Amino acid sequence: MSITSFNPPIRTLMGPGPSDVHPRITGAMARPCIGHLDPAFVGMMDEVKTMLQYAFKTENQLTIPISAPGSAGMETTFQNILEPGDTAIIGSNGVFGGRMKEVTERCGAIPIMVEDDWGKPVDPQKIEDACKANPGAKAVAFVHAETSTGARSDAETICKIAHNHDALTLVDAVTSLGGSELRVDDWGIDAIYSGTQKCLSCTPGISPVSFSDRAVDVITSRKTKVQSWFLDTNFLMGYWGPNAKRTYHHTAPVNSLFALHESLVMLQEEGLENSWARHYKNHLVLRAGLEAMGLSFVVEEDYRLPQLNSVSIPDGVDEAEVRSRLLNDFNLEIGAGLGALAGKVWRIGLMGHTSRVENIFLCISALEAVLIDMGADINKGVALYAAQNAMK
Amino acid sequence: MSITSFNPPIRTLMGPGPSDVHPRITGAMARPCIGHLDPAFVGMMDEVKTMLQYAFKTENQLTIPISAPGSAGMETTFQNILEPGDTAIIGSNGVFGGRMKEVTERCGAIPIMVEDDWGKPVDPQKIEDACKANPGAKAVAFVHAETSTGARSDAETICKIAHNHDALTLVDAVTSLGGSELRVDDWGIDAIYSGTQKCLSCTPGISPVSFSDRAVDVITSRKTKVQSWFLDTNFLMGYWGPNAKRTYHHTAPVNSLFALHESLVMLQEEGLENSWARHYKNHLVLRAGLEAMGLSFVVEEDYRLPQLNSVSIPDGVDEAEVRSRLLNDFNLEIGAGLGALAGKVWRIGLMGHTSRVENIFLCISALEAVLIDMGADINKGVALYAAQNAMK
Repeated sequence: MSITSFNPPIRTLMGPGPSDVHPRITGAMARPCIGHLDPAFVGMMDEVKTMLQYAFKTENQLTIPISAPGSAGMETTFQNILEPGDTAIIGSNGVFGGRMKEVTERCGAIPIMVEDDWGKPVDPQKIEDACKANPGAKAVAFVHAETSTGARSDAETICKIAHNHDALTLVDAVTSLGGSELRVDDWGIDAIYSGTQKCLSCTPGISPVSFSDRAVDVITSRKTKVQSWFLDTNFLMGYWGPNAKRTYHHTAPVNSLFALHESLVMLQEEGLENSWARHYKNHLVLRAGLEAMGLSFVVEEDYRLPQLNSVSIPDGVDEAEVRSRLLNDFNLEIGAGLGALAGKVWRIGLMGHTSRVENIFLCISALEAVLIDMGADINKGVALYAAQNAMK
Repeated sequence: MSITSFNPPIRTLMGPGPSDVHPRITGAMARPCIGHLDPAFVGMMDEVKTMLQYAFKTENQLTIPISAPGSAGMETTFQNILEPGDTAIIGSNGVFGGRMKEVTERCGAIPIMVEDDWGKPVDPQKIEDACKANPGAKAVAFVHAETSTGARSDAETICKIAHNHDALTLVDAVTSLGGSELRVDDWGIDAIYSGTQKCLSCTPGISPVSFSDRAVDVITSRKTKVQSWFLDTNFLMGYWGPNAKRTYHHTAPVNSLFALHESLVMLQEEGLENSWARHYKNHLVLRAGLEAMGLSFVVEEDYRLPQLNSVSIPDGVDEAEVRSRLLNDFNLEIGAGLGALAGKVWRIGLMGHTSRVENIFLCISALEAVLIDMGADINKGVALYAAQNAMK
């Protein structure tokens, strides 16, 4: 065996995540490791909590990073809130709504599925109907920003409906946190999870979560134990919680938390609302270029996420070949479609540090070059000009 | 809010983990992120699997890193192997055996506890008796290297007993992997998990696991679904497994895997058996110094882990004050006792990159200085000389 050090190619990451990581963040990650009970580390943990509250727009005390990726964040919210026999109404309009069903069933709980077409938002009226048809449902769950389609659902309205029916709200904000409007307290979100590798532009592997006091009451008065010892917030509160003596639970991923800390410092420096505005403004530039080329967006403008752009593939074009050429010839990664949209769309991410005009120009120029070379029927020579104009 | 970048103090980590991380490893971690489905990343994943097989001494195909710390590795093995109603015999001689009980119960399975004193190894005869008393037990589980005490159990003998009774073997090797003899295939271990932050000297946050073909057969023929979607190896095999089309399951912690890759390259460069020998040799140096000072070891020599040294505290000494002074005055971290040994021992780690003579000299010198200053009854001025002599 003679395996040597791995030096990754230098890519521009415009897929559905991970997004480009700012060198300040990888630099922070490379700082010397310290102990997970070191007083200096405990101080940093408090700062991470404070900055996560800022990013989520919440005062929830239980606002912490889970030591695993967003999928584990989903399990943390569902496993802590749901007990065997509970009913959860799940609004599903893409891959991650479907995953919520799987996770709910594995909790021994009963999912009531409310389906909407992929690319459409979750329909609040259908959620209302489901709440009426299932009185006593413990929770309403849905994805705020569907990473598989780029559709944004109206979290505020859905949460109001759920609360009117006395249900807790469980929300997936993996792709929205830091990139578009998200207000945990104002909207009445009871349990939310996100990821670090999207609009926070941090390295993948950590899942920020937040639980309302109401959710904490439900968790601390459970009749059964949380299935996962690792994700049991009753323990996590002992290590992360307010005024807690820091009780060892598991070894925290110290360097990954250094990185998260730095990404949150950067978010704070830019300002949360400024970050939302930047993501939207850059979406307009990308949109102008792609539409001028003749490509169209899958999601209607009213519900389109600026940070995750699902676009149609020109007729007769081998979409995988296009992605492969972009990667090999331009070191540019864009995403494939997932699930029902596999083979039908590309997903172009403009998340976090990726959301910069220089990347958009590269994407438009390279995509146009590849499509022309492959003989695709697109409008030639107009895309970059349209994008430049959209910057004004 | 005006939180600024976090710059950790530079510590020497001689606690129970994390251990000192070599700059080559943090340097690898800081390389630019790439996509988790990038062909270059997929190639690196194959190398990680090959090198983990080397470290575990196994040819198990299902040998992969779990995207979360060692506690999640424990849940991965238990949740995948055990179904509700199954019986598991658990040898417990410290904190982590106790945690196995918790995790087993949360799987809906029945733990049969075989208790040994903290600091002693798991007694094979008691395991044999438990197997006889519980025919049909699905698994025998135990901790190979108890991080809470520093005791090593005889994994080979216990596995033989378990197999004689047709039970699978589940083994915690968080503290042994890379630091002392461990032979997954020769010893007949069916499911094993470890951590990156101990003798691999990598950053914390990833848990290498390995499953025998027999264990995989059990997993793929389960009657019930694995409780955790995130830790379900049926899915993980699709992303990591042999000859698999790399199917997206969750976003891999890309940069943390860069770090793991580099740590395994370094292990391979040193040679696994050489690493075991280095850990043992350095233990002898530390032992000579501490015993000359008048401190004694909690674990008998035959079962003592060279990488995790539990030592007695001199009478009348405030042990927390000692640790605090070492940290503040010398930037040296040593570990407190845990559980039944809290307040009774210090745990001095010599794991991975920490296991170097320069660190041992620092530890002995600083500990002696603090103890003398606090008026402890120790032998003065002889420890370092004894340690130096033990290097010969």
